[in-house]
Order: sequence, then C-alpha cells, then structure tokens
Amino acid sequence: MNYCTQCGAKVVLRIPEGDSHPRHVCPQCGEIHYLNPKLVIGCIAEWEDRILLCRRAIEPGYGLWTLPAGFMENGESTAQAAMRETGEEACARVAIEQLFALVSIPHINQVHLFYRARLLNADFGAGEESLETMLFDEHQIPWDKVAFRSSIFCLEAYFMDRRSGAFGFHESTLPPP
Amino acid sequence: MNYCTQCGAKVVLRIPEGDSHPRHVCPQCGEIHYLNPKLVIGCIAEWEDRILLCRRAIEPGYGLWTLPAGFMENGESTAQAAMRETGEEACARVAIEQLFALVSIPHINQVHLFYRARLLNADFGAGEESLETMLFDEHQIPWDKVAFRSSIFCLEAYFMDRRSGAFGFHESTLPPP
Repeated sequence: MNYCTQCGAKVVLRIPEGDSHPRHVCPQCGEIHYLNPKLVIGCIAEWEDRILLCRRAIEPGYGLWTLPAGFMENGESTAQAAMRETGEEACARVAIEQLFALVSIPHINQVHLFYRARLLNADFGAGEESLETMLFDEHQIPWDKVAFRSSIFCLEAYFMDRRSGAFGFHESTLPPP
Repeated sequence: MNYCTQCGAKVVLRIPEGDSHPRHVCPQCGEIHYLNPKLVIGCIAEWEDRILLCRRAIEPGYGLWTLPAGFMENGESTAQAAMRETGEEACARVAIEQLFALVSIPHINQVHLFYRARLLNADFGAGEESLETMLFDEHQIPWDKVAFRSSIFCLEAYFMDRRSGAFGFHESTLPPP
C-alpha cells in the first residue's frame, strides 16, 4: 500500500496512538488503513456418496483439483458465499447442511471455511474458473493432484468422519509450506 | 475508495472482465481493488461458571457490556485472534476450548466468531478499550446493556447449551436492525 484511498496522498507506516500494530496512515487526511485477513469459503458438496471437485482453470493451482471455494464478498453471509462459489465454479445448486471446517492460514492472511452441503441435482458443470467438474468416490480422489492443503485437510476429515458415522467440526492452522 | 493504493490515480467503479461484481479498478496501473468482509473474533471466557464481560470505553457501544472481541489481524490464526483480543480488552489469559458461534452480519460486511474459553486465573482487568471488566453469573447478565446483537446471540446460545448439558456450534445471520 503506497497511497491513501481517501485523498490520494502517500501513506506512511507507523503505530497509531493506542494501537499495537504498524498501520498505513495518511499524513494528509489522517485515515488509518487496516489490512485484515480474507475469508475463503466453499463446500464439500455430496451426491450419492460422491464429492464434487473442480479442476482449476486459473492460478494458483492451474490444472489441479479442489473443492469449490472462493473469496467471500461484501453483503453476503458465509453460507451464501459457499452457495455462490459452488454455483460459479461448478454451476451447481446446493443445500447447506453444516459448517464442517475452519482452516487458518496466517502466512497468507486467509481463513478458509467449508460447509457440508447436498447437491440438489446432478446438473453441474465447469464454470469460468474451472476446466472440468466431477463427482468422486473416496477411493477415486486424486490426492496428489489436489490444489490446496485446506482442501486436503477438509477431504481427509470428511472421509474420516463419514467412516466413523458422525460428522463433527474440524479446525486447523496451516504453517508455511 | 477514491484513489488507487498502488499508484495514487483516481479509481473507477466497473465490473472487470470475467467478474460479476463492480470493483474499484485503477485505469492507470490496472490494479483491481477487492473489498471483503472482516472477521471479528472473541471469547466466551468462563471462570467458575461465570462469564467475563467488558464495558466498552469506545464507540460503538460506549458504556455498554460486551464479550471481549475485535478485528482479526493479518498473520494470526482465528484462535490467536480470540486470545489476543481477550488479552487486550480484559488483560485476561485464556485457554481456547472450541469454536462456539459464527454470526454473519452482511449489512456491515462482518463475520463474528466466538470461541468458548477458560480463564487461566482470575487475574484480569480493563484494557485500553474497556471501562471495566467483570465476571457475571447467568442471572446477573445486564441483557439490556449488552452492546452487540452478536454478543446477545452468543450468550443466549451459551446459557441454553449449558442448561442442556452439551455445548454445540451455533450459526446465525443478522438482518439490518
């Protein structure tokens, strides 16, 4: 961050009075610019014991498989974000069941949330950011071709819970690779 | 948002190619500025069946009681944010137990998370943003003087679960007041 979003002046990095963190502060208009983690939200969408994955048409992870997920937008709830992203990436309609996993990734300033969801029908397909979409049985999951560690964490926890007969809530913090 | 944080040029609001939402785009350097919801994270911190509340020394909600909570910072996990905020607002040290509540507040672009936590000792007090801090029994909670609807939702769910003998996970979306 170089310039103030409010007045266009060059910002300086300093700790505001009463604060504990350095912030980008505007010496002209006084605006303090806070940078905060972003939420990435998605679904483990199920259809007849199979899970919906998308093969990414964009970086990072071009060509690799992932759970449908993306950045939460202003003006929506977390569950709405999960449904919207599943619609955009896999042209799929889902019913949200329960929050299943929260993954903090401090080194990239992200928090990932995944909901368990049911596909409303088998009518899905690749959205703009996907090369293809497919339903996978547990033994078909292409583990060495899954794009993100949060997706791997979530899928492993999901199949573990499914074998145990009860779905819980799972939390993890990922260290830098 | 008026000016580009990267180059200082005046931004324009338009839908970038392949996007579905209007964004602040810089016509000079091409930067797309995304605005995303912020996480507010706190604790329901317990000590001998009583709950720690803080009376706010800042707006919004000056003079009203609230669960210790605040904006998640870059570079930390959600649980670390909950511990840090409880330290800053109530000078209290806690052990995190479990994620207890998620409250989406779309009209102010916030998601609130609350963890159940145990105070490690009864050594606490008002931080810079609190007028005072106090432990409350359920029947002492000053319901008409609690600052935020997310705190009220969380406290009500907490006491309901405690009476039932089992703590679950609670999710809600708050409509505009």
